[in-house]
Amino acid sequence: FSGLTFKHLFLISFTPHCDGGNILVFPLDGSHWINMKILLEELHARGHNFTVIRPSTSWYISEKSDLYTSITIETAVDFEHFFGGCLQEQVEGASLMTAFTLTKNFFSLISFAHSLWYDALKNIFDDQNMIKRLRDSQYDLVLTDPALAPGLILAKYLKLPLVLNVRWITSGEGHFVLAPSPLSYIPVPGSGLTEKMNFIQRLKNILFYSIILFQQKFVVDPVYNDICDKYIEGGCDVISLLQGADIWLFRSDFVFEFPRPTMPNVVYIGGFQCKPARPLPAELEEFVQSAGQHGVIIMSLGTLINAFPKEITEEIASVFAKMPQKVIWKHKGDRPSTLRNNTLIVDWMPQKDLLGHPQTKVFVAHGGTNGVQEAIYYGVPVLGIPLFFDQYDNLLRLQERGAGKIIQLADVNGHSFEQGLKEVIHQESYRQNIQRLSRLHRDQPITAMEKAVFWVEYVMRHKGARHLRTEAYKMPWYSYYCLDVLFILLSVVTVLLLSIVAVFRFLCCRRQRKRKTKQS
Amino acid sequence: FSGLTFKHLFLISFTPHCDGGNILVFPLDGSHWINMKILLEELHARGHNFTVIRPSTSWYISEKSDLYTSITIETAVDFEHFFGGCLQEQVEGASLMTAFTLTKNFFSLISFAHSLWYDALKNIFDDQNMIKRLRDSQYDLVLTDPALAPGLILAKYLKLPLVLNVRWITSGEGHFVLAPSPLSYIPVPGSGLTEKMNFIQRLKNILFYSIILFQQKFVVDPVYNDICDKYIEGGCDVISLLQGADIWLFRSDFVFEFPRPTMPNVVYIGGFQCKPARPLPAELEEFVQSAGQHGVIIMSLGTLINAFPKEITEEIASVFAKMPQKVIWKHKGDRPSTLRNNTLIVDWMPQKDLLGHPQTKVFVAHGGTNGVQEAIYYGVPVLGIPLFFDQYDNLLRLQERGAGKIIQLADVNGHSFEQGLKEVIHQESYRQNIQRLSRLHRDQPITAMEKAVFWVEYVMRHKGARHLRTEAYKMPWYSYYCLDVLFILLSVVTVLLLSIVAVFRFLCCRRQRKRKTKQS
Repeated sequence: FSGLTFKHLFLISFTPHCDGGNILVFPLDGSHWINMKILLEELHARGHNFTVIRPSTSWYISEKSDLYTSITIETAVDFEHFFGGCLQEQVEGASLMTAFTLTKNFFSLISFAHSLWYDALKNIFDDQNMIKRLRDSQYDLVLTDPALAPGLILAKYLKLPLVLNVRWITSGEGHFVLAPSPLSYIPVPGSGLTEKMNFIQRLKNILFYSIILFQQKFVVDPVYNDICDKYIEGGCDVISLLQGADIWLFRSDFVFEFPRPTMPNVVYIGGFQCKPARPLPAELEEFVQSAGQHGVIIMSLGTLINAFPKEITEEIASVFAKMPQKVIWKHKGDRPSTLRNNTLIVDWMPQKDLLGHPQTKVFVAHGGTNGVQEAIYYGVPVLGIPLFFDQYDNLLRLQERGAGKIIQLADVNGHSFEQGLKEVIHQESYRQNIQRLSRLHRDQPITAMEKAVFWVEYVMRHKGARHLRTEAYKMPWYSYYCLDVLFILLSVVTVLLLSIVAVFRFLCCRRQRKRKTKQS
Repeated sequence: FSGLTFKHLFLISFTPHCDGGNILVFPLDGSHWINMKILLEELHARGHNFTVIRPSTSWYISEKSDLYTSITIETAVDFEHFFGGCLQEQVEGASLMTAFTLTKNFFSLISFAHSLWYDALKNIFDDQNMIKRLRDSQYDLVLTDPALAPGLILAKYLKLPLVLNVRWITSGEGHFVLAPSPLSYIPVPGSGLTEKMNFIQRLKNILFYSIILFQQKFVVDPVYNDICDKYIEGGCDVISLLQGADIWLFRSDFVFEFPRPTMPNVVYIGGFQCKPARPLPAELEEFVQSAGQHGVIIMSLGTLINAFPKEITEEIASVFAKMPQKVIWKHKGDRPSTLRNNTLIVDWMPQKDLLGHPQTKVFVAHGGTNGVQEAIYYGVPVLGIPLFFDQYDNLLRLQERGAGKIIQLADVNGHSFEQGLKEVIHQESYRQNIQRLSRLHRDQPITAMEKAVFWVEYVMRHKGARHLRTEAYKMPWYSYYCLDVLFILLSVVTVLLLSIVAVFRFLCCRRQRKRKTKQS
């Protein structure tokens, strides 16, 4: 098919307007903020204003910005060092860890993060001036990343429409809030499962689901209990706050994610941060071009981790030294001794522009959502070494589609890394598959960013989007599952059956008695 | 909010191409065809070609057309007279009928229609030349309305991608195929229920669901059994054919429909037939303007029915005669004797252009999907008199939102009609509510028609859309519901508990025995 193009040939009969919105943003730090900031920039260009709530010890969210006014909350923990440190430790010890330990560590990190944010939130609520300022500012909506709960609670308290910019819900994602999600084909986040599960895998999925349910009810919710009781009329819990959100901007799509049911207030914006690649800086372009026909390998571990443990780093460096490709490696630790001059070590790289460069043959990545989405957008196959959080799950989705290969951190050594790298570079199917995903991903009537902006403005125009969400979650669980109806139906059937049996027995007995009477 | 407009400010980085598609269309007759034809016209304007399969006795689908090539199948039943007759009879006797009778009649009509189409389909399969022609034509996809099954079966036989243009699935809609659909808040089509159900209503919903399930398994599926067995490898049934569709163009949206979960291959295109109103013919415009400040009432019963029973028609006419408004009434029966010259009787009216006219105050309608969607699009409140099929359900959705009022056919008389009409005209909330719905409905990033066209072409570009649908329905039902896992888990727990009890009893007994031995 070629020729006609899909360029909005139709008249849009109704052109919605929406200027100068006033948005309260409660973001998450780290790579989540990078993402959120791109959305804010786009909204800013359309005339909207932001107030961003940030911790005093923030890692990525600066106090002064042309983009937003900030509200700084005093926090004691240095997010960069705390999280970076914890995770670096986890990676250092990873070869000794099982999937279970990794998951457990992940859970305890989440719990700790929640308690930090509880303190921050309490600081806000206890500060009368702050509360007055927030109330008086007449925001049009709250935009938050609900991986942690404070934005949800603040939106509820201020009675403002709520838009979520969300990747995973650690409280069980879809299983609670997105839509009814049968555990037989919808893997729980963190389970490392796909949409196709055998008996044992479904058992595992149910166990993971139970763990997450337990964590939500008994670990996360209690953290916020007293704030909910004190400040929110009728109390609150994280899950119903999520269920009350007007719009979910979900950083995924169904090229990446397995198909699943969704409620109508969920908008999939996976890859919304991607744009056609810009030209590289001259020096970098020269380096990339010098690779000739062999092309370039790029490697990055994302924002949370500076480097792999030393011995792994050395092994990787020695593999790179053997390759005919040029390598661009984002690495912040000591310079590996085995490095050859085909490898360029950098502190930071224009990752998207490099992925969009035709010379790039493979992306060695940790599997963060941003990186994986970018690999899909630009069509570059991935050799993935997942570290923690959703990274294994993300990479698994590529591997399932034949567009990437996973090496577990514990299995990384010179041999496995070299094999993996060569496989992804030379086996044509990896490139073909990721490019097919890329075509599918890009083939949308409007871009993911347009969708995101549209729905944020939609919520402002209509002061919410109540008609897009069900309130069924407010029913008691036995009504939601119609167990009360089934119970009554079963009871009626039982009573009927018993009555029939009783009548028969009565009739039989009378006959027998009569016969006996006659006989005697 | 006003000022900036949403006019696709972003660059679409990837412009999909798709020309000259070759589409096999298996439509439904009557109002469904009117709808389908509008979609075909739009696709035609973009360079696609169609072959339309039509019955020789078709009602609306003409043999010769500039829009398509037709394939005519010999059929014995005159669709217009058969359906029109049946339904007219049903309406004539409606005051005597209960909801149950109406539903029953509806079911038997459906079954009869299926058997008619079975014959038609068999004619196709038995005609070797026809089959060869269909095979050789190398269609890109089959576009069908799945209210009846032949298009589904033919697509499966020809191994072609399948796009559905669909309103309701009489086989239970979402409950089987769209997505997991809890019966506690998703009313079964035809149940006359809303998203908010009390105990009795949930009981009713479950009963309706059971009836539909029964009908599907034991009435509809058997009709096609031998065709499925003979021509489809591995056999087939209607539900899995539906589940295998690539894209569902669903003629509804969440301004109209209650919120419900949906799989990613369902695209909501409610109101896709609507465009900004065109000017009326001069004579009609003059009549409409002559109404002055009182405005105009328009009334239509859709395509299936010519007129109400005589006595109801007379009563309605006498009410119209009393009103200060002008009336445009689509009515094909005898001219009512009580008519005054404020009422214009017409055979046909430019319904959409009239609904879009600022003089129109109220739409007296039977509640067909097209009319209700048009009322929403143009923002005209509805006085609804539902006749059959989904019409009550459609009107109920307006009434629930305060944008329309229902009078059951059995309750229609001069008094009730006059009251209803005056209420909808004079109670401002009706107009406010329907106009709010209209604003919400029109506020979409692209129009419903753009969506429909995009996804048809998407399926052609990618030769299907498999990644958007789950194949979970292929699991055995006990695996789908994880009952096998739960059974094993419960068994393990039971065995464990029993073992513990056994050990305890063993230990206790031994102690007691020892004590007894000592005592003795």
